[in-house]
Amino acid sequence: MTLDAAELARLDRAHIIHPYLPGSATERIVMTEGAGCRLTDTEGRSYLDATGGLWLAQVGHGRTDLADVAHEQMKKLEYFTSFWDFSNDRAIELAARLAELAPDPLNHVYYTSGGSEGVEAAIKMARYYHHRRGEGSRTWILARSKAYHGVGYGGSSAAGFPLYQEGFAPMVPHVSHLTPPWPYRSELYDGQDPTDFLIRELEERIAEIGPENIAAMVGEPIMGVGGMLVPPADYWPRVREVLDRHGILLIFDEVVTAYGRVGEWFAAQYFETTPDIIVTAKGITSGYVPLGALLVGDHVAEALLREQGFPMGYTYNGHPVATAVALANLDVIEKEGLLARATTIGSFLHAELQSQLGELDVVGEVRSVGMMLAVELVADKATREPLPLDPERMPHDVIRRESGVIVRDSAHSLVLSPPLIMTEAEAKEAASALRSVLERTEPNGRIREA
Amino acid sequence: MTLDAAELARLDRAHIIHPYLPGSATERIVMTEGAGCRLTDTEGRSYLDATGGLWLAQVGHGRTDLADVAHEQMKKLEYFTSFWDFSNDRAIELAARLAELAPDPLNHVYYTSGGSEGVEAAIKMARYYHHRRGEGSRTWILARSKAYHGVGYGGSSAAGFPLYQEGFAPMVPHVSHLTPPWPYRSELYDGQDPTDFLIRELEERIAEIGPENIAAMVGEPIMGVGGMLVPPADYWPRVREVLDRHGILLIFDEVVTAYGRVGEWFAAQYFETTPDIIVTAKGITSGYVPLGALLVGDHVAEALLREQGFPMGYTYNGHPVATAVALANLDVIEKEGLLARATTIGSFLHAELQSQLGELDVVGEVRSVGMMLAVELVADKATREPLPLDPERMPHDVIRRESGVIVRDSAHSLVLSPPLIMTEAEAKEAASALRSVLERTEPNGRIREA
Repeated sequence: MTLDAAELARLDRAHIIHPYLPGSATERIVMTEGAGCRLTDTEGRSYLDATGGLWLAQVGHGRTDLADVAHEQMKKLEYFTSFWDFSNDRAIELAARLAELAPDPLNHVYYTSGGSEGVEAAIKMARYYHHRRGEGSRTWILARSKAYHGVGYGGSSAAGFPLYQEGFAPMVPHVSHLTPPWPYRSELYDGQDPTDFLIRELEERIAEIGPENIAAMVGEPIMGVGGMLVPPADYWPRVREVLDRHGILLIFDEVVTAYGRVGEWFAAQYFETTPDIIVTAKGITSGYVPLGALLVGDHVAEALLREQGFPMGYTYNGHPVATAVALANLDVIEKEGLLARATTIGSFLHAELQSQLGELDVVGEVRSVGMMLAVELVADKATREPLPLDPERMPHDVIRRESGVIVRDSAHSLVLSPPLIMTEAEAKEAASALRSVLERTEPNGRIREA
Repeated sequence: MTLDAAELARLDRAHIIHPYLPGSATERIVMTEGAGCRLTDTEGRSYLDATGGLWLAQVGHGRTDLADVAHEQMKKLEYFTSFWDFSNDRAIELAARLAELAPDPLNHVYYTSGGSEGVEAAIKMARYYHHRRGEGSRTWILARSKAYHGVGYGGSSAAGFPLYQEGFAPMVPHVSHLTPPWPYRSELYDGQDPTDFLIRELEERIAEIGPENIAAMVGEPIMGVGGMLVPPADYWPRVREVLDRHGILLIFDEVVTAYGRVGEWFAAQYFETTPDIIVTAKGITSGYVPLGALLVGDHVAEALLREQGFPMGYTYNGHPVATAVALANLDVIEKEGLLARATTIGSFLHAELQSQLGELDVVGEVRSVGMMLAVELVADKATREPLPLDPERMPHDVIRRESGVIVRDSAHSLVLSPPLIMTEAEAKEAASALRSVLERTEPNGRIREA
């Protein structure tokens, strides 16, 4: 079937329900090719992918080396189940490798096909851990406003945006939301040190619910969809200390932050905080094949493996092709030194954004860790009032239309999570594309024509 | 990394949490190769895959034609997001094709990476449909005992086994379970016609909850994990009629039954009943790459696409490699005539099971539709008392150890869902393997040594 651009767009409108796209939207950007940080669509237009797909294309697009590995594995054994006592060689090799990379005592791997599946499993694991240990009353999950944890019912119950609950409720009960760490928004903390405020709130919330009723706290080490919210350095160590004191598990949702994005294999290492469970996906294969993996502490695994074991599994658990591609992807990250590169090119891109945008009236803050970056937009630098936005003409849409550079909006921030292989020239190009639009953006959110 | 069998088994035990496997279990069957219906493990043992992986290997294992398609697509465009107005050519072609195959008016496709993700989305769609139409009170979901709907929080709330809820609760509220259609177990229906009984129960339940509070009923057209429970022919048409009368949506969970397994593209066609949403996965790619697709009716899509659209999406939505492989897999199903073949080889296998097992004391019933088959085991043919089972020596384990034929247990039934390409010789081999063990199985569940 070879269809032209117009016919593809027509069939798309007729047949696909895209996430977050109104039926009234007629434009379609239909990608057909990718190489490195570049994409091409059916109209022959070229794009610079500064979002890394959805925060996942660590090693860049269209790599023959990964495709060759998938090809060989698919011919040899494309799939068999890993339920019960069945397994396969690739899933085992990857599990051993992940256990080496992860902080101790996270030595156990539970496979999924993505982040949403992973968060469902993590919440279930936390409750089940306590259930197996005779503390069945521990069912509450602490989460945070502005959190994103995928769109399964468990994860979207933990989400910190009403969008993920309105019209879908009733959600999974026993979830309580805390204030997010967002130092730029100092108004959230009553003029106190943000960590002091947040730790006191955490302690108070635990006392309210009762520690004997709380299973776990779940959090993104750096909140992604919330706008690349980087917590103060002492936040996670102090949270960990409080939770430990109350027997509450800590789940890191590292679906975005793992596998090099923050310059380490895991953000747990960056923040020097070891959770009980890490949920990963995305960067584990750079998106070449859907895959997720939970890294689970010895003490949690010990409880899950009692009696008849852990009673849930996803069909594609330990998928041979997905795990083979993940192994090859981790090889690329190692051989090409992409952990270090995330830090160096991330710092370079940060500096470019700062120098090109920092002085603009609508730019409140440029922040980043590794290759997670955000430009927070404001109506007023002094008051930090968020920039009002016109849904019909959002900055990220104008940037893409004018320059082909793809960035993402997150409320009133622009967020970037490019492939870790991005060049300095591409970093400059991305920063210039933002500047070109933001320098024409007025405090009322209107963007002047070029 | 080339590891020997013992080292792989050791690493597996040290690092992998397998679904449903106790930590005390030391045996591992580590598959390394597959071709057609055959698998090979690290010890060089050969297996006949009569479960089709987890009910999904429609076209059989290790096919070069599908691997080649994956290889080409991965080199060209491995992934970009399909959120918002982004799309890709392969996802569009597959959506158009699925819309052609599905019964009218199911013309819209929403992508996932598997069945569990699909059920979460379907429950959310049903509630959201009513929310958008101003009937926000419609939140209840009708499900059934013995149902299996994946292991996301939504799906496992709808599951009809306590195993999927114990230790994970509280679950998603507003789910109500009905009696399953299982004609062999006539004791469930107070001596009445099963459908009459079930329809009256459905009407009564709707009246109790109030139709104005009910969003949808979700059901597997043929219950898989429950033991291949085939409803009477008039069950789904009459359920549909009742639901229609009350404005309640019908969701078919066809994760197992779609793409040829029952001799049609969808069981909806087999039962001549059109639901509002069909959830599919598994057979859509025969498992070569994780993928799922919801087929959504025009009226549901219209509501979901209002305002800002449907506010949830999975990262790998419309994955180019997964959708390219799905297109090639559907080609194979068509070109090799596997819909018809599911019926003919399924009937052949059914007849073999009936003739080889039918007279055995512990075999209560052999039942099937297409290539979904079950042998229900009993302690007593007259009373139909279920066969007691020794968890340390289950019939399906003994069958695999003695003959290499892989079948699955489902409570006190053995279930088979082989690749649709199975040969008559392989069907005979599978039936003989079952006979060899079941003829030594005593009414107390003990299996004599061969």
